[in-house]
Parts: sequence; structure tokens; C-alpha cells
Amino acid sequence: MNSLEQLLDRARVASRKLPGLDRDRALDCICRALCDAEPNILETNARDVERERAKGTPDSLIDRLTLDPEKMEGVREGIRQVIGLPDPLGRVLEGWRHPNGMLIERVTVPFGVIGIVYESRPNVTVDAAALCLKAGSAVVLRGSASALDSNRALVRAMRRGLCGAGFPEDAVALVDSADREAVTRLLHARGRVDLVIPRGGAGLIRHVMENARVPVIGTGVGNCHLYVDRDADPDMALGLLLNGKCQRPGVCNALEKLLVHREIAPEFLPRALRALEDAGVEVRGDEHTRALNAHVLSASDEDWDTEFLDRVIAVRVVDSLDDALEHIARHGSGHSEAIATRSLDAATRFQSSVDAAAVYVNASTRFTDGFEFGFGAEIGISTQKLHARGPMGLREIVSYQYRVTGEGQVR
Amino acid sequence: MNSLEQLLDRARVASRKLPGLDRDRALDCICRALCDAEPNILETNARDVERERAKGTPDSLIDRLTLDPEKMEGVREGIRQVIGLPDPLGRVLEGWRHPNGMLIERVTVPFGVIGIVYESRPNVTVDAAALCLKAGSAVVLRGSASALDSNRALVRAMRRGLCGAGFPEDAVALVDSADREAVTRLLHARGRVDLVIPRGGAGLIRHVMENARVPVIGTGVGNCHLYVDRDADPDMALGLLLNGKCQRPGVCNALEKLLVHREIAPEFLPRALRALEDAGVEVRGDEHTRALNAHVLSASDEDWDTEFLDRVIAVRVVDSLDDALEHIARHGSGHSEAIATRSLDAATRFQSSVDAAAVYVNASTRFTDGFEFGFGAEIGISTQKLHARGPMGLREIVSYQYRVTGEGQVR
Repeated sequence: MNSLEQLLDRARVASRKLPGLDRDRALDCICRALCDAEPNILETNARDVERERAKGTPDSLIDRLTLDPEKMEGVREGIRQVIGLPDPLGRVLEGWRHPNGMLIERVTVPFGVIGIVYESRPNVTVDAAALCLKAGSAVVLRGSASALDSNRALVRAMRRGLCGAGFPEDAVALVDSADREAVTRLLHARGRVDLVIPRGGAGLIRHVMENARVPVIGTGVGNCHLYVDRDADPDMALGLLLNGKCQRPGVCNALEKLLVHREIAPEFLPRALRALEDAGVEVRGDEHTRALNAHVLSASDEDWDTEFLDRVIAVRVVDSLDDALEHIARHGSGHSEAIATRSLDAATRFQSSVDAAAVYVNASTRFTDGFEFGFGAEIGISTQKLHARGPMGLREIVSYQYRVTGEGQVR
Repeated sequence: MNSLEQLLDRARVASRKLPGLDRDRALDCICRALCDAEPNILETNARDVERERAKGTPDSLIDRLTLDPEKMEGVREGIRQVIGLPDPLGRVLEGWRHPNGMLIERVTVPFGVIGIVYESRPNVTVDAAALCLKAGSAVVLRGSASALDSNRALVRAMRRGLCGAGFPEDAVALVDSADREAVTRLLHARGRVDLVIPRGGAGLIRHVMENARVPVIGTGVGNCHLYVDRDADPDMALGLLLNGKCQRPGVCNALEKLLVHREIAPEFLPRALRALEDAGVEVRGDEHTRALNAHVLSASDEDWDTEFLDRVIAVRVVDSLDDALEHIARHGSGHSEAIATRSLDAATRFQSSVDAAAVYVNASTRFTDGFEFGFGAEIGISTQKLHARGPMGLREIVSYQYRVTGEGQVR
């Protein structure tokens, strides 16, 4: 047995103690320890940043990698928010009596050991650990090689916080290796890890989903559409479009595609294309769209399946609601889809036909978010149908069991 | 693209129509078609049975494979029961307003395409199809090679029933191949199948869990323990033991292990061992147990992890509740575990510490069953923690989505 399996087994032992402990106090201890260790964490992070900069890593990644006092305060504020949330464990979801008198209750319980595989942002290290601990599970973290020293410093501080207050330090563990092989071994550790959640770009998520032999929840790839129906209010549709595409183009709930009903296109599209152009958005259109505006580039077949995560949008004119539904069924990623319409019939058909985590009528796809949904926290946005769909808060990272209490009943 | 992928894609197209159709009427049409086709089905099944008998297949498997008019009536009665259950789709699980006025609703929706991989019993072909259709999903069935002709006849009848009444026949499909490679391809069909549920023995389930690249729910392996606490009522404990072990030894919720507290062992174990002997159960014990009864065989290390599914039980004397919990944590399969005790403290600690789908206090593990739990049907018993745990009825084979309705809200 090698060190990864030992680490998972120690996490398992620690996880058994968690449900019975004051996990909010444990989080408070972590918060204080991170404060005490801040000089060391920032110094270590600065070395990670310097090394990556020397390698020519792009600025956007350097931004994500960099910690500063403000981000560290944000990290601690995140922990305090998690402390403020209700305990997700031990909730009796339902209960009833068997005709023979036995009480059957369905009660929330922890997963046990949760693995998080993520990319450059070291604050995820703390955010994810806080949520998993609150949910009564030990957490095994695997960040990117570029942030390895930062993550080491963060995990060391968190473990010191736990240990110093008598909590099991092995409830937070780092896969301390830059080797990709370590991810594969984590993904193959059947029986040792109860759930793995990938957080990051499409490549990371695909790698995890394709290689996992343990339960996983796929997250985050969003090829989101806005369909502007024949009966849409054009002003409202324009607001949804600009908000969805421009407010924060690099996130998974941003709009990537615009579908416009043929009958409203002559009125709506020229305005929309101008507004997108003014907002610095590159438009790639089908033939019909290009006929309305000569600046529009030609959309390739691949564009319809691409999550741009940038100031780019692909636009298509469709003949009907059915055409829009068909396009979304073929190209959507099951994240968030929206319709702008004043027609009750179109709204109802869209919501009952689209197979996605969140389906919007006259509202921006940008709302698919744990905080916006009122969960008080978010560990990711599931794009799969098993277990959890859409924004995942504490409730989505617990399991349940049946507890049956009788007086000797037999069959 | 080969025929399995084509079959899955046709199932996908059919699945999109299901939520909007009268699925209860579709099930009724299937029921009638199975009645009409009964002579042909029984004739075909008789040929499967004859061939397997000639091969020297054991009687227990021949029993499972054999259909007769009584079993066929049972199959149809199963469909009628499913028709009588409430529609699991379109249920608003919860709903609330965002501070900005948007309505956010969480609504049950179908998975889409569900694959069922199972063993010899051809009645599963119909049971599983009826549940999946009621839950709004198309079903792709893969039974065993020994029942292939029987399954062909059953699926042909079901498809004829759907088609004759204008329902999409591709909503029920059979992987028409005795080749194991077909299972692997089904398990790798990411994006084409939304969920695979294995039903069968430990070998089949392990094969599916280890090879799946699509979402799966592991079912059915039960290494179930009864722990007789120091404070147990010996008569009640004996009742739970005999019911758990003897009422139906071949099923997953039957008892496989008995753990007895050291202090109650001298009173309880001699009676229990005699009663087991009288019931024709072979007992394999630890040293302490063997000292109390010379007929008891010696339990091997392997026995503690084995699901006997037979009139065999392994018995161990433990020093404490903690020892029992530790033994169950190490050897249990996460299915059903029971304690017999009069101590509230022991009952509470057992239920809050044991990591299994169903945890019993003073009741038989044999109750872990969809019908006993009042679900009106069962597609299997999940032993995993993701999505569904314990008995799975209709509610466990649907997913959900968020439906958000606004008036132009943006972030």
C-alpha cells in the first residue's frame, strides 16, 4: 500500500469522528489558523507566482494563482459564511410507520471521504475543505502543480488549526504530488473515496469523468443558449443577451449562443448585433445572421459546440421553437438555457422540453449559482443527472440512510 | 456508428416523447400485448430452458429462467401495480422566490435513457421496462445469454404493444447480443445513456461498477450483520436471527453474520446455535463461539467478507459495541445492519455510527425492500451513497431540474 492509499485510509478514520464533533468550532479554528499563517502563506504563494511568471504563464492564470491579503480575507469570510449555515447532517427528510408499527426514517448522513480535483485557484483549497467538513466528510484535495507550494501552506495551516483544538487533522489532506498519475490513482480508489468532484476547465472535467472508477459529479461546462422567441419583448431579450454574454464572460453560466426566431429576427437582430459590437463581443453567425450585418464572421460547425468563455458569441436564426429545442438538444451541455417570450405556451413548452440543470423563462442564465439560488455556498454546478443537478450547496454533498426502529418485527 | 449506438440514439429520440404521453395507457397496451403473445413467449422460453438443461445448468438457475402461466400473470400484475402508482414526473419538490422576484422551482424530470444489465430471470425484462417507462425514460435491456430468446420474445411483445397504440416502440429496446463486449460498449456510451443499473450477483455488479464510464447505481450485495448487544432481549434477538437467516437465505437482505456481546454470549449463544442447527444452518464461528458448541466449524478470514446467500452463517463474539461497530465498518457491504438491544444509548450509537443503507434497531434486515418500505415497486437496492441509497422505487429513477421564471431579471 502506497502513500495515497494510506492518506485516504487516514482520512476515512478521521471522517468517522466528524459527525459527532462541533464542526463549526473546527471551522473557526481553521479560520484562526489561516489568519496566523497568512504571512507564510502569502510568501509561499509569491514564490509560486514568481516561478510561473518566469515560465511565461498567461496573465489570466497568474491572476487566479495569486493570493493577497484581500483574497485571504475573502477566504476567511467564506468560512464564516459556511459556519453560519444550518447543519446538513441528521435531518429527518421523511419518516413513516410500516403497517407492522416499525418507524422508518430517512436521515441525512455524510458521504465519508470526498476528493476535490481542481485547477489553479488556491482559494478553492479552503472553500472546498470548509464545505466538506461542514457536511461531515473528510476532504482529499488535489490542486494544480502550479499552486502546489501555496496549497501545501494552506493545508498545513488548516491541519494545524484542527489539530491544535483536538480535531482530527487527517480530515483535511492534500495529495502532495505534481504527478498526474496521483489523480488517476485517486480516481481508481474504489471503496476508499466516496465521491470525487472536479472543479475546473472542460479538459480537467473530461479527464476526471472518463477515468473515474469511483462516484463522481461532473461540473461546470456550460454551452448556454438564449432563444429569442417570435413573441419576445425585444427590449427584455436584449437585456438578457447583454447580461448573459457581457457581465462575466469567463464563467460557466455565461451565454455562448443566441438563437433568434425568423419572424422577430429583422426587428431584433440588427439592434442586438450592434449592441454586441458596442460591447466588444465578436459575433459568429449563420448565413441568415450575416445577411443582416456584414461585420459578422461565419460560424463554423465546431462553434456551436464550443464554450468560448470569452467575448465571443455564435448566432443562429431558427424557423420555430421546435428548431430551437432541437438545436439545444443537439448542442447544449445541460447547464443553463433561456427563452425570452411573452407566450405562455412557448414558455411552458421550453421549460418542459429542455434537458438542462436550469431552464429560464425571461431571466438571465447568469443566475445559475449557489449563492443566487439561496444555498449560501457552492461547491460547483452539476451538469449530470445523477444525485445533484445545477448549483450544489451543502445539501448536495450529503447522502442519506434509512433508520428503522422496531420492537422485534420479522417478516 | 454501429448498431448499439444506433439503438441508443433511437431510444433517446423515443425518450423525448415519453413525458408528454399517457404512460399509464402505454403500460396497459404492453400488458395486453404480453397476454396476446403468451403462447409464443412460453414456447420460446421452453426452448431456452431445454437448451440450458442440456448444458447441465444448475436447477436453481433453471428455476429462475423458467416462465410459466403463473409467472406471466405475476409479470402482468406487476405492470398493473406500476400503473397504479402516482406519476413521478413533474412534481414540484420545492419552490421559492429570489429576492428579485424570480420564481425558482425544483421539478422532477426523467433521466432519458436507462440501461439495465441483469441476469437469468426473464421477468426482470418486463418489471424493469415498466418502471423505467413510468418514470419517463426509455429503457435499454441487456439480460443474460441463457435467456436471450425469451427476452427477445418479451421485448418484441412489449414493442408491438407500444407501436400498435401509437407509442414510440424504441422506448423499449433489447441489446440483442450474447457477446459480453456489448455490455462493455453500453457501459462506455457516455452521452448516449444517462444511467445504468446492474441487477444480479456480486460478479455482474462488480463488472459493471469497474467498467462503467457512464453514471451507475450499484445494487444488491448484502453482507448483513445482526449485533446482539449486552442489553438485548434474548427471545427477540433469536427471532430476528432466525428470520434474517432462514426466511429466504438467497436474497441480499438476508443475515450473513452474527456478532454477540461477550457478556450475553453464555446465555444467548448456546440457544442460538441450537436453533440454527435445528433450522439446518451451517455455523462457522470464531474460537469463542466454538468453545460453546463443538459442532461449530471454524470461520476463515474470508468468511467475514462473504455473502453466503445460503443456509450458512458466521458467528463472532465481540467485547463491546465499539468492537461490533469496528467489525461492521471493516466487513459490511453498506446494505443492511441490525442491533438487538434494550439500551437507548446503544441503539442511538449504532444507528448514528453504522454506514449502511438501512440500519435497524430491533427489527429484521429482511425489511430492506421497496414493497416493505411502501414504494409500491422496486428496481433494486442501492448500496452506494450517490443519488439513491437502499430500496429504489420510481422516485429514485428520476432526476430534477430547476425551472426559473422571471420578467427580465439580470445580474
